[in-house]
Amino acid sequence: MSLSKNEIKLVNSLQIKKYRDLHRLFVVEGVKLVDELIEQSHFKIDGIFYTSAYQRKLPSNLHTFHISDAELERISGLKSPNQVLAVVKYPNEIPVDYSEENLVLVLDNVNDPGNLGTIIRTADWFGIKQVIASKITVDLFNPKVIQASMGAVYRIRFYRTDLKEELMHLAAHGFEICGAELGGDNLYNTSFSPKTALVMGSESHGISAEINHLIKKSILIPKFGETESLNVAMATGIILSHYRKAIG
Amino acid sequence: MSLSKNEIKLVNSLQIKKYRDLHRLFVVEGVKLVDELIEQSHFKIDGIFYTSAYQRKLPSNLHTFHISDAELERISGLKSPNQVLAVVKYPNEIPVDYSEENLVLVLDNVNDPGNLGTIIRTADWFGIKQVIASKITVDLFNPKVIQASMGAVYRIRFYRTDLKEELMHLAAHGFEICGAELGGDNLYNTSFSPKTALVMGSESHGISAEINHLIKKSILIPKFGETESLNVAMATGIILSHYRKAIG
Repeated sequence: MSLSKNEIKLVNSLQIKKYRDLHRLFVVEGVKLVDELIEQSHFKIDGIFYTSAYQRKLPSNLHTFHISDAELERISGLKSPNQVLAVVKYPNEIPVDYSEENLVLVLDNVNDPGNLGTIIRTADWFGIKQVIASKITVDLFNPKVIQASMGAVYRIRFYRTDLKEELMHLAAHGFEICGAELGGDNLYNTSFSPKTALVMGSESHGISAEINHLIKKSILIPKFGETESLNVAMATGIILSHYRKAIG
Repeated sequence: MSLSKNEIKLVNSLQIKKYRDLHRLFVVEGVKLVDELIEQSHFKIDGIFYTSAYQRKLPSNLHTFHISDAELERISGLKSPNQVLAVVKYPNEIPVDYSEENLVLVLDNVNDPGNLGTIIRTADWFGIKQVIASKITVDLFNPKVIQASMGAVYRIRFYRTDLKEELMHLAAHGFEICGAELGGDNLYNTSFSPKTALVMGSESHGISAEINHLIKKSILIPKFGETESLNVAMATGIILSHYRKAIG
């Protein structure tokens, strides 16, 4: 059975946010990411398109389509398509869990999909469970975010919401609101509270004015050289590692 | 004056390592990177090609060429060419300085140019001066490395050499050879020596067998979640931040 023009058109359209939101579907590609997708339970799979090279036995309750290499090339967003592509349903939103004694990561307008994916991968490494993002932060379901996250998107709870309101809720629930900022206190002398909300600003503009007054503690990663700035994903990973060293 | 076909061909060829090595020239693009290039003294500039949009007054001792936007597009390797492109001479190699009481970063086969650029940017932030790389590590003069380094390539001394021999020299000069490895000691309990040589392995294969026996101290960034690995640039930045916290 070969793919219809409409099927190809639908899958291709999911490279674009407008159509992802319209269909409430997104795409996951490649052996490793699809294998992990099948093993997790949070995301529901709408369909799996695989070529002969794909070796895994697919669960019988899934809609699966055996396609040719040429067909995979037509629906893939990758430069080098990799055996399998899954179409996945948007998950249901779960409300923020304020009871967790853990750091909550708050992303204020991170624009670059590679950075968002790396942030999620790194947050997962450090045992962070909840990531909250402003409405204009790059889409979690952008294929580049999914790829760069290396599967960590399956394990992190991601909320897109109004940050001002959410930070007030977090503060009311006992979270210490910290932000990475120039002119902040030296990270190396910072003591962390287990319930920390860590706000990371955009790559070029830092933390936005609307929420800056909600930051109770500013943190600076001390600079020893002359490079103007650290990449936002790098800065996030460094602060998370020091939080973990302090809190365990 | 418009560019000749041969000039266009030469500049374009510098996107490829073989031709960079042949001409001992590489390309730097964009306002910020070229502005910083002009201010530094380590690299000698062979020529600067700029469009009318470029506002900076260029020093009179440089070969400069005023070109059209269309010409810049023909010689640029960027998707969106940005006003100016410089052709730069390979620097002379300076021998490794073993007297420096500082961390020396040793890169064992880092393959991805974005990762190498980010590593150099981050190393510069943390005041690292010397980066040593295996011969098959991605080329420092790859345009993607230059872009991702955000100008830090001008400030870091970079050596490409045989790592086995170099690590033996470093050890003989009192450097403690550390490596980031699975199964190493917890980074959070590690004490660092000021003279540390930190070996980072490749993205997919870790530290190579030929040099692994030279590692005197293995370091592990403890994992609290389920993500399989950290990106090599991220892991480098995290370890450097803890080295700086310990040593100052």
